[in-house]
Amino acid sequence: MDIPEINRPARALVERLREMGAATVAGTLAHMGIRDPHMHGPVSWNKGKAIAGPALTLQFMPKREDLYGQNEYDDPEKQLHRHVLYKVQPGDVVVVDARGDLTAGVFGEMMLTYFKGRGGAGVVIDGVIRDWPHGQSLDLPMWIRGLTPNFHTQTGLMPFAVNVPIACGGVTVIPGDIIVADDDGAIVVPAALAERVLAEAKSHAEWEEFSKLKLLEGGDLRRYYPLHKDAQAEYEAWRKANPKK
Amino acid sequence: MDIPEINRPARALVERLREMGAATVAGTLAHMGIRDPHMHGPVSWNKGKAIAGPALTLQFMPKREDLYGQNEYDDPEKQLHRHVLYKVQPGDVVVVDARGDLTAGVFGEMMLTYFKGRGGAGVVIDGVIRDWPHGQSLDLPMWIRGLTPNFHTQTGLMPFAVNVPIACGGVTVIPGDIIVADDDGAIVVPAALAERVLAEAKSHAEWEEFSKLKLLEGGDLRRYYPLHKDAQAEYEAWRKANPKK
Amino acid sequence: MDIPEINRPARALVERLREMGAATVAGTLAHMGIRDPHMHGPVSWNKGKAIAGPALTLQFMPKREDLYGQNEYDDPEKQLHRHVLYKVQPGDVVVVDARGDLTAGVFGEMMLTYFKGRGGAGVVIDGVIRDWPHGQSLDLPMWIRGLTPNFHTQTGLMPFAVNVPIACGGVTVIPGDIIVADDDGAIVVPAALAERVLAEAKSHAEWEEFSKLKLLEGGDLRRYYPLHKDAQAEYEAWRKANPKK
Amino acid sequence: MDIPEINRPARALVERLREMGAATVAGTLAHMGIRDPHMHGPVSWNKGKAIAGPALTLQFMPKREDLYGQNEYDDPEKQLHRHVLYKVQPGDVVVVDARGDLTAGVFGEMMLTYFKGRGGAGVVIDGVIRDWPHGQSLDLPMWIRGLTPNFHTQTGLMPFAVNVPIACGGVTVIPGDIIVADDDGAIVVPAALAERVLAEAKSHAEWEEFSKLKLLEGGDLRRYYPLHKDAQAEYEAWRKANPKK
Amino acid sequence: MDIPEINRPARALVERLREMGAATVAGTLAHMGIRDPHMHGPVSWNKGKAIAGPALTLQFMPKREDLYGQNEYDDPEKQLHRHVLYKVQPGDVVVVDARGDLTAGVFGEMMLTYFKGRGGAGVVIDGVIRDWPHGQSLDLPMWIRGLTPNFHTQTGLMPFAVNVPIACGGVTVIPGDIIVADDDGAIVVPAALAERVLAEAKSHAEWEEFSKLKLLEGGDLRRYYPLHKDAQAEYEAWRKANPKK
Amino acid sequence: MDIPEINRPARALVERLREMGAATVAGTLAHMGIRDPHMHGPVSWNKGKAIAGPALTLQFMPKREDLYGQNEYDDPEKQLHRHVLYKVQPGDVVVVDARGDLTAGVFGEMMLTYFKGRGGAGVVIDGVIRDWPHGQSLDLPMWIRGLTPNFHTQTGLMPFAVNVPIACGGVTVIPGDIIVADDDGAIVVPAALAERVLAEAKSHAEWEEFSKLKLLEGGDLRRYYPLHKDAQAEYEAWRKANPKK
Repeated sequence: MDIPEINRPARALVERLREMGAATVAGTLAHMGIRDPHMHGPVSWNKGKAIAGPALTLQFMPKREDLYGQNEYDDPEKQLHRHVLYKVQPGDVVVVDARGDLTAGVFGEMMLTYFKGRGGAGVVIDGVIRDWPHGQSLDLPMWIRGLTPNFHTQTGLMPFAVNVPIACGGVTVIPGDIIVADDDGAIVVPAALAERVLAEAKSHAEWEEFSKLKLLEGGDLRRYYPLHKDAQAEYEAWRKANPKK
Repeated sequence: MDIPEINRPARALVERLREMGAATVAGTLAHMGIRDPHMHGPVSWNKGKAIAGPALTLQFMPKREDLYGQNEYDDPEKQLHRHVLYKVQPGDVVVVDARGDLTAGVFGEMMLTYFKGRGGAGVVIDGVIRDWPHGQSLDLPMWIRGLTPNFHTQTGLMPFAVNVPIACGGVTVIPGDIIVADDDGAIVVPAALAERVLAEAKSHAEWEEFSKLKLLEGGDLRRYYPLHKDAQAEYEAWRKANPKK
Repeated sequence: MDIPEINRPARALVERLREMGAATVAGTLAHMGIRDPHMHGPVSWNKGKAIAGPALTLQFMPKREDLYGQNEYDDPEKQLHRHVLYKVQPGDVVVVDARGDLTAGVFGEMMLTYFKGRGGAGVVIDGVIRDWPHGQSLDLPMWIRGLTPNFHTQTGLMPFAVNVPIACGGVTVIPGDIIVADDDGAIVVPAALAERVLAEAKSHAEWEEFSKLKLLEGGDLRRYYPLHKDAQAEYEAWRKANPKK
Repeated sequence: MDIPEINRPARALVERLREMGAATVAGTLAHMGIRDPHMHGPVSWNKGKAIAGPALTLQFMPKREDLYGQNEYDDPEKQLHRHVLYKVQPGDVVVVDARGDLTAGVFGEMMLTYFKGRGGAGVVIDGVIRDWPHGQSLDLPMWIRGLTPNFHTQTGLMPFAVNVPIACGGVTVIPGDIIVADDDGAIVVPAALAERVLAEAKSHAEWEEFSKLKLLEGGDLRRYYPLHKDAQAEYEAWRKANPKK
Repeated sequence: MDIPEINRPARALVERLREMGAATVAGTLAHMGIRDPHMHGPVSWNKGKAIAGPALTLQFMPKREDLYGQNEYDDPEKQLHRHVLYKVQPGDVVVVDARGDLTAGVFGEMMLTYFKGRGGAGVVIDGVIRDWPHGQSLDLPMWIRGLTPNFHTQTGLMPFAVNVPIACGGVTVIPGDIIVADDDGAIVVPAALAERVLAEAKSHAEWEEFSKLKLLEGGDLRRYYPLHKDAQAEYEAWRKANPKK
Repeated sequence: MDIPEINRPARALVERLREMGAATVAGTLAHMGIRDPHMHGPVSWNKGKAIAGPALTLQFMPKREDLYGQNEYDDPEKQLHRHVLYKVQPGDVVVVDARGDLTAGVFGEMMLTYFKGRGGAGVVIDGVIRDWPHGQSLDLPMWIRGLTPNFHTQTGLMPFAVNVPIACGGVTVIPGDIIVADDDGAIVVPAALAERVLAEAKSHAEWEEFSKLKLLEGGDLRRYYPLHKDAQAEYEAWRKANPKK
């Protein structure tokens, strides 16, 4: 099967996006003209994960009995959802358009195990997975809509294409785009804009650590967020006493 | 722009499917193993139309501001929704995956006028059209979800590909599949199964004309539908008196 | 098959409810403590019809392949949706819980023809029908959610019981309850409350004809609706000149 | 009751917006930065109407039994939905936030009659009306979600405020904004932008009449829409022979 | 009150289904022709539970004020939701059709306490429960849609029947069917098919333990899942060294 | 900016409502005629919290580009969502009508920090928040619909008014109403009814502690809940041995 390859960004760039977090990256993209990069629907399933990585894509289509049949059931190598996994390199994110379907489990324990074994960073699925009681010990970062005991061709979907542009959670994903995901959700950073996101966002928020402390003590929002010029000296004194790590 | 061509079935075959109507074709497909060929969502907008024809497809994707921009606005020839229309031949049906979006008008008056001028049979859109007050005089067969005054890139969609496999109303459509549509809705007949549909369905219902008459007079459903052997002679007598036209 | 019979109310009572119309009956029921008798979802499909009649009920359930199978396909007399029709007497209304499903056509042309032949008043279906291009000439009063070319067991439903209590459009319907339906929608009048509805509603609105005329001429709402005592003499003069027909 | 008045725009301005139609106005607003002025949900109920006029607003809120009670039932003058009607002047449009509720009829026959008697242009309701069988003869332009026999406080809503900012169909409406509505739907033109809309849109489309004719004859979309410079001479010749009316 | 009894399957059979888990049982049922046994909507509320047991059923219907009233409020023994609990034996599962309603709490702390006291295995509710802050210490296995502080007749539902066929989450449940539920969800095993499910599924997956290990180390999916004949010897050597427990 | 103040109830009253819990308060309100005080949609995000306090309200409206613009972006003091926070006093609850929108984050880490610093009891939002990875350490009681990385004006909402009546989760909230929230959900207690709620509910359930114990041991529901007169002596003996704390 002839699956397109993707271009992978420099690992350092990806890592810096991960550290920024989905909220800061989404806000920066918004100011650059990308209105809504958030893939709505899939939610963080293992709380506390934060990943970033290039997107491999898997497209499901509504099942058609004349197009998916005995051949695929008999020969696992004809099953397209395996092929996206064959392409996984360490740090990759698999993004799946499962059409928001809640009845068809996209991956089960064995596929997720293989994905983890290859070093995959995580999966984002506009749909559900199955076999969670066995798969959860993998502790794999996942953004999904839920769970089902059904396998995917059991109800209404069939895997249809790998590494083609897809829509996931209302956002177009081009293979090679960078996914940034944490508990806030998973967003799409167009590959060509990634460097600029870092540049636009970098001067942000040196005083935020200080402001947060003050606000938690009941400090005035008008004084501390954003930092008012009247509080600049106070901040600088504090910073001297509390140097950045 | 390099748009794939489609293979068109013999016109006679298409015409016979049209005459059978969507309900009989859908039932026949179901007995052949195609569970649900009905594109749910789009409904007959000009009541009383019945069409059939090969599918040209247009795929919309969620709008991404870095992928659809000033170039497309400045140069209409970059706008992909025009290109599906350039491919239209008499009798063709344009099927559009507009993702069920109710805010983005897929075609307006001028595009629909051009489509009609080229002899298009009708359109099936999992979405909405705009400019209906001007476009309705075209009396074009349309299966759509509704209307909006908005144009398509105004809100959340951008045209993305032409004559690729799409999902429309929960059914996968391959370019060249045959669409059969009437007031019951629009269905997809896989091109490779079309001849067989005709063969499987052809012996249907010579006595239905008679049965319907009898049922309307209050005749017993057990006797007349399906035609019971006790009523066979009665039917034959009636048929002799009322030869088929 | 052992299908329960229903008790039918006096025809005159039913006719008076029909004349009152769904809005007045619903409002009266509300004042009697029945919060919402309106079956939401099914809408008037042939505009301008107004019917009333006792309910026969048909319950669909999610299809289970071990419970609905070859037996039913081979022997139409095992198909339960036929049995509700066998019970129809002139003026009856068939109410169907099809679970709001939009993919499974409850009745087609032949069933509806038989229903009309038996003198049925109309059908209310929390679901869809099929074969409308052939069936529409029956001009049968119908409150439905829409149309499909699919037959009912093709996708997700199976007929399960006849003349049992059902829910239709969010309202519980007991066989024998009186259905009142017009373009506003279809409502359920509990059989035991029907007489009282007539009694509570009867003194309504002798002056409404006059008020409507005045309002249409730009008359003051405060004076004419409800009729203010200052306008009583004016009304009476008008009534004398325009005796009730 | 102290209901704010609205400022009404010049009638000529409103009339020109009406003639442009919702699609052209929405497109013009989009180019001016208003992304989506279309009130989604309410649809044209009496096909073929086209209106424009300043908005009076009526806000419903979820019914609270401690806030809406016997007082309002006993004294119609306490019922706020009457008060928006008292403010109607010829050409006005009443826009109602009924929260998309499909169970609570906002207006019935008498209220709509009074509205028409005062010269109201039409109503836009993110909800439903009741008593349509009696009210339809008014032939009033209405954009609504549907019908019910229920009155509004029967289920979940209560009228709450008049001529305050509301949201209707996902668009914020400020009293005095100009509503433009036709079969495509109803849109909101911010009062302060109305003149600019006319200015931006006015040079539009002198050649469209010609192009439409050509397209309907099978003319090339690339040549006629938008009008190509190669077709300019052809157009001018045609125009000379077919002067604008 | 005359509530039907159910037939209970052998405990050993139930226990083996529980051990297989919902995903394996659902997949086996699918191969036997049961397309989708998963009750969609209710989700595992106390993560990590896995139960199986015969179904007692409780049916709610839309509340009708003339059918549920002071009698039921005054005499708890008239409240049908209590009666399904009276029938509970150790290991039973109560399945409730609460129509997907999110506003009406089906059970509260006391009912759930009684259920646990009788040895009930768990509950599956297409709806919500109330009083969770007090009830959660019971640590009862529950598959539900969510929580509410409301009791059930407070809003739109009334308990209507016990141990009748119901639909729950889009699946028909016959009293006595076997429910298998874990974090993937809750499924319905038709009682008559239970033995066959065990028979069809039993030869499954002796090598899966080995394959999973290999995949987690980055082993080739093509070699290890399903186990390729080239890896058979490797597996057997491993198995010899790691005998099954 | 001129933001209305609210009246705050006595802290002791609020505290007693908190102790009763949402379920008992909702049930009591229902018996007093308030059908459904539960704000549906927002769910308990940090399990195990139980709060009560007077409501400050924040209303979002659909974003209109002519009404929310550069002024608000440039001058934080023009951003209305800050102003509701300025009004917070210890024990207050901020209730936000974010229209159920899942794409627009209402508050982020800094706003929530300030809210906590001022002693706010918790927030109820018919919408989502952002920046949860940073904000979660605040351990703030929150009832929300979910999370997003987007900020609120990034997509479709703008803050519009503070301390005005709002609808949240289908319930009307008047500033100063008392919110009671725990894992069952958040409910609205009309300020004027709060004392009466305490009075009506106070005699409740002295024997419930005993009954719960008995039910958990398998005791008969008919005997112990509600407590039957035959069990009165048993209860009293138990109570003597287990005096209330």
